[in-house]
Amino acid sequence: MENYIFGRNNVFELISNGDREINKIILMKDMKPNNKINKILDMARQKGIIFQFLPKEKFQQFNEYSHQGVIAYVAPIKYVDFNEFIQNDKKYKKVIITDGIEDPHNLGSIIRTAVCAGFDAVILPSRRNVNVNSTVEKASAGAVNLIDIIQVNSLPAIIDKLKDNNFWIIATDINAKDNYYDVDYCNMNFAIVMGSEKEGISNTILKKADFRVKIPIVSHFDSLNVANAASIVIYESVKQTVQKSSNSV
Amino acid sequence: MENYIFGRNNVFELISNGDREINKIILMKDMKPNNKINKILDMARQKGIIFQFLPKEKFQQFNEYSHQGVIAYVAPIKYVDFNEFIQNDKKYKKVIITDGIEDPHNLGSIIRTAVCAGFDAVILPSRRNVNVNSTVEKASAGAVNLIDIIQVNSLPAIIDKLKDNNFWIIATDINAKDNYYDVDYCNMNFAIVMGSEKEGISNTILKKADFRVKIPIVSHFDSLNVANAASIVIYESVKQTVQKSSNSV
Repeated sequence: MENYIFGRNNVFELISNGDREINKIILMKDMKPNNKINKILDMARQKGIIFQFLPKEKFQQFNEYSHQGVIAYVAPIKYVDFNEFIQNDKKYKKVIITDGIEDPHNLGSIIRTAVCAGFDAVILPSRRNVNVNSTVEKASAGAVNLIDIIQVNSLPAIIDKLKDNNFWIIATDINAKDNYYDVDYCNMNFAIVMGSEKEGISNTILKKADFRVKIPIVSHFDSLNVANAASIVIYESVKQTVQKSSNSV
Repeated sequence: MENYIFGRNNVFELISNGDREINKIILMKDMKPNNKINKILDMARQKGIIFQFLPKEKFQQFNEYSHQGVIAYVAPIKYVDFNEFIQNDKKYKKVIITDGIEDPHNLGSIIRTAVCAGFDAVILPSRRNVNVNSTVEKASAGAVNLIDIIQVNSLPAIIDKLKDNNFWIIATDINAKDNYYDVDYCNMNFAIVMGSEKEGISNTILKKADFRVKIPIVSHFDSLNVANAASIVIYESVKQTVQKSSNSV
């Protein structure tokens, strides 16, 4: 199993970053010379990464992605071990947990927001949840390489462990009484749990949550897209932290 | 040109709502009897909408959508006239403007969030922006039928008109000094402008904005997905309004 990274900026980020094993890079023959492409080639030479120029036809199978004539073949992402993550000694850790997200675009998009927000990890169950495949990578705009992604067999067991490690568990639930902005996200470890597109968070996990919060819906329409909902809650926590730190200066 | 509405709930909503011209509804032959399907059939009979039972093979071309054996063929959505919209006498109007969104999933997702947030309209330019096609409809989960969608030839001209009608124009811009939560969204008409995935908001429009705001990025990663960014700003305005109204009770 290989994953693909598409597009000039994404491949450039991938090589610069350097954490990910790159099997090879393919580039389209007869492309116009371009600054980004030259940088990619320079770095590939420096780092001894195989690259190949191939005719246009070879790129046809990838036409649904905007590859711009540059594709990297990479090893699947390396999942981080939960125990390793929990032992690193950052003061406050922020985590997002997905409980059964099926759409790879949603997962990728959530990972991208988590990275922008400076979160430390994304935790996902190994079953009933999409894996970090090429579509997820693409939808994350390469953000999957910039955050710890932890795949776990049992989400309830991991939530217990998080609680043992002083994490507060915040579950988003359309039937909750409190709003997402009623929680004080500052100066604590916390995990925000997002449920599946169709069924929300499973009952076992809802019961373990320290907070249940909803996003108020102002119309009679049923619900937000899960990646948008995640962004709203994640950024409430960012806002509180930024405001608190600027007030205390 | 026809659009399609996929899935039991979406088709049910569509018929109940009644605002949209439905050309016909197709249902898969030999489906298990189901309460939602019976309701769809009852309403179709009452309202004189043509329906057809077709074999499974006819649905194959739509297999990338989760149609659940029910698809409605509808006229393209009816865009609302800007002047009509501006003349309705709601006290405070909230609008989202997309300046060059290319990805139909992003546009659909923004429309869905706007509906959840009780916004009044989505304004989009007729060029350099995706139209409200079937993919947009699907990504909006049917929300396109629940909000005024206004397509305009010249966004700068419409922004001038909005300003003449006491709207405040809030442009999201990664280079802005202020944060999105520094604006007071209460008790005023406002339009939030979101730029294209690649280039953000055009300069002409940036110059016309009353506020330029950014969403703070906590890591060195470049940017959020535009639909997620829109959700974050839209929901800051919802939060402020909900909090203000509960304080004043």
